[in-house]
Amino acid sequence: MVPLGVLCAALLVGIDAHAQPDPLPSWNDGAAKKAIVEFVQATTDKASPKFVAPEARVATFDQDGTLWVERPMYSQVIYCLDRVPAVVKTKPELAQVEPFKTVLSGNREAIAKLPMRDLEKILAATLTGMSVEDFKTEAKKWLDTAKDPRWKRPYTELTYVPMQEVLKYLQANGYRTYIVTGGGQDFVRVYAEEVYGIPPEQVVGTAAATKYGYGKDGEPFLTKEPKLLLNDNNAGKVEGIHLMIGRRPYAAFGNSTGDRQMLEYTGAGEGARLMMLVLHDDATREYAYGPAQGLAASKVGTFTQALWDEAKKKGWTVISMKNDWKRIFTFEP
Amino acid sequence: MVPLGVLCAALLVGIDAHAQPDPLPSWNDGAAKKAIVEFVQATTDKASPKFVAPEARVATFDQDGTLWVERPMYSQVIYCLDRVPAVVKTKPELAQVEPFKTVLSGNREAIAKLPMRDLEKILAATLTGMSVEDFKTEAKKWLDTAKDPRWKRPYTELTYVPMQEVLKYLQANGYRTYIVTGGGQDFVRVYAEEVYGIPPEQVVGTAAATKYGYGKDGEPFLTKEPKLLLNDNNAGKVEGIHLMIGRRPYAAFGNSTGDRQMLEYTGAGEGARLMMLVLHDDATREYAYGPAQGLAASKVGTFTQALWDEAKKKGWTVISMKNDWKRIFTFEP
Repeated sequence: MVPLGVLCAALLVGIDAHAQPDPLPSWNDGAAKKAIVEFVQATTDKASPKFVAPEARVATFDQDGTLWVERPMYSQVIYCLDRVPAVVKTKPELAQVEPFKTVLSGNREAIAKLPMRDLEKILAATLTGMSVEDFKTEAKKWLDTAKDPRWKRPYTELTYVPMQEVLKYLQANGYRTYIVTGGGQDFVRVYAEEVYGIPPEQVVGTAAATKYGYGKDGEPFLTKEPKLLLNDNNAGKVEGIHLMIGRRPYAAFGNSTGDRQMLEYTGAGEGARLMMLVLHDDATREYAYGPAQGLAASKVGTFTQALWDEAKKKGWTVISMKNDWKRIFTFEP
Repeated sequence: MVPLGVLCAALLVGIDAHAQPDPLPSWNDGAAKKAIVEFVQATTDKASPKFVAPEARVATFDQDGTLWVERPMYSQVIYCLDRVPAVVKTKPELAQVEPFKTVLSGNREAIAKLPMRDLEKILAATLTGMSVEDFKTEAKKWLDTAKDPRWKRPYTELTYVPMQEVLKYLQANGYRTYIVTGGGQDFVRVYAEEVYGIPPEQVVGTAAATKYGYGKDGEPFLTKEPKLLLNDNNAGKVEGIHLMIGRRPYAAFGNSTGDRQMLEYTGAGEGARLMMLVLHDDATREYAYGPAQGLAASKVGTFTQALWDEAKKKGWTVISMKNDWKRIFTFEP
């Protein structure tokens, strides 16, 4: 005979096992969490007038500042600066040429002041001129060893837990989740599968042309060329989505003016659409920059008052890191 | 009581239902069919040393001449020629300008003789300058009504049944099948899902840039620009595969020198790889052009002696339409 207590415990366990677990446990209850859950329910319930066929379920995510930390500098830019000594080793004449001379000096203040055209020279010198395979190997090596100066952890650990939950929640509901980033497509592809569960073919990013050629044993390979093919920022994000996906997203997530057109394009579609902007307003747990609460707009990840106004006018949801997120990182105490 | 005959019939039906059906019923037994079946078995059997993880299963297919008829002219070129009167209606000044004047004359011989630079003018005038939505609507309308002059059927019916079987067979075994075509990416996307079960994001083709802008009610839209972004032919096919997929294919199918680099790149990968070329050697049921049996190479879908030699040297399989395919079209008697 089964004692009543055991039976009750079994029943409770049974109930528990069948209860719908919260798909977004790191989110506080509020308008942002509600918007996500309602969107997923409305677009995946066959009885809903807003049902979306599985093949059309596309969600796009900006990366820097939306899925992971972008301050004090984009991690790819830090990678490029770190690569300068290796590049100069193969081309010693660059050691006395700006901006390489400044980067080699290690003077952080001077490096931070380098104008955009100098930064572009550094990106071109460190991201092109090698085979795509060699680039992948180098980038992977850096990602395995480099550490963020504030948290002393690999950059790949600086992803936001609440956004990881959104990715998993959408994926579990038949959405193909794409990264649509101003960052380098080849760079992001190196870690996107491991970090976000996003395969290379679902990474849309700024892309340089490649050139097909043959090695000394006749083996074919691709070389990364210093020729911009797609500048995946601002309007370029929509153009990149058309080029690489060929469908209008049903959901789009960003955090800066560089994501504005992607959200506009998503919102201009029919039926249920979800547009969200991550607002960095938590100086304690992460960083605070942007127009809310009188914060000045930042150069990296600019969230202007105009973007804020457009979001309010068009019904886009602004996610407050401070108020909407219970925790931000996996390593938080 | 069940009569013995009924019981036996039921048993036979039972056996029949569980027998492995032939995945390639339109293929004659031979080296080509064997190569496909062995490749799929080796790469999907977990116990095989050549097993390929599901996420890496990518197969690429040229379209014109590989999945459907490309003679006497690529169907997209016929679309562009058919569009000329509509373009001239909106820009009457073109009526007296070459090559539009020749196209409007309807003189087929003169049209066939137009040099490449004139053809490019026609492609630019008919494929760019409109929104991507308007282009899609126009192309769909044409595909629904235009007919091939020889078979008097819509172009979308001129797909090869044996290749449709290969697509379905690979898809059923976890392969993501991509079209990698010299044709226009936007044009092929209009029908690829319906005709081949290939969604827009799995069509890699020659692509023009698009430009983001706003309509008179502020609605965002993309305009097709006369600026080539990706020439998805020859080496461009490999560059397009890297840009759009970011993975090396395990199987690649083509029919002309424009597919050579794609097959080389596929074959240079480790493990099991399948490289196949469709040879047009059936003048009765389709067309005959190419180097086999003393056929002269054609301008459309060039299959040179050099390609033939490379295929033999590298172990690529040449598919003889005449000998390997039991039937070519669904509408065959």
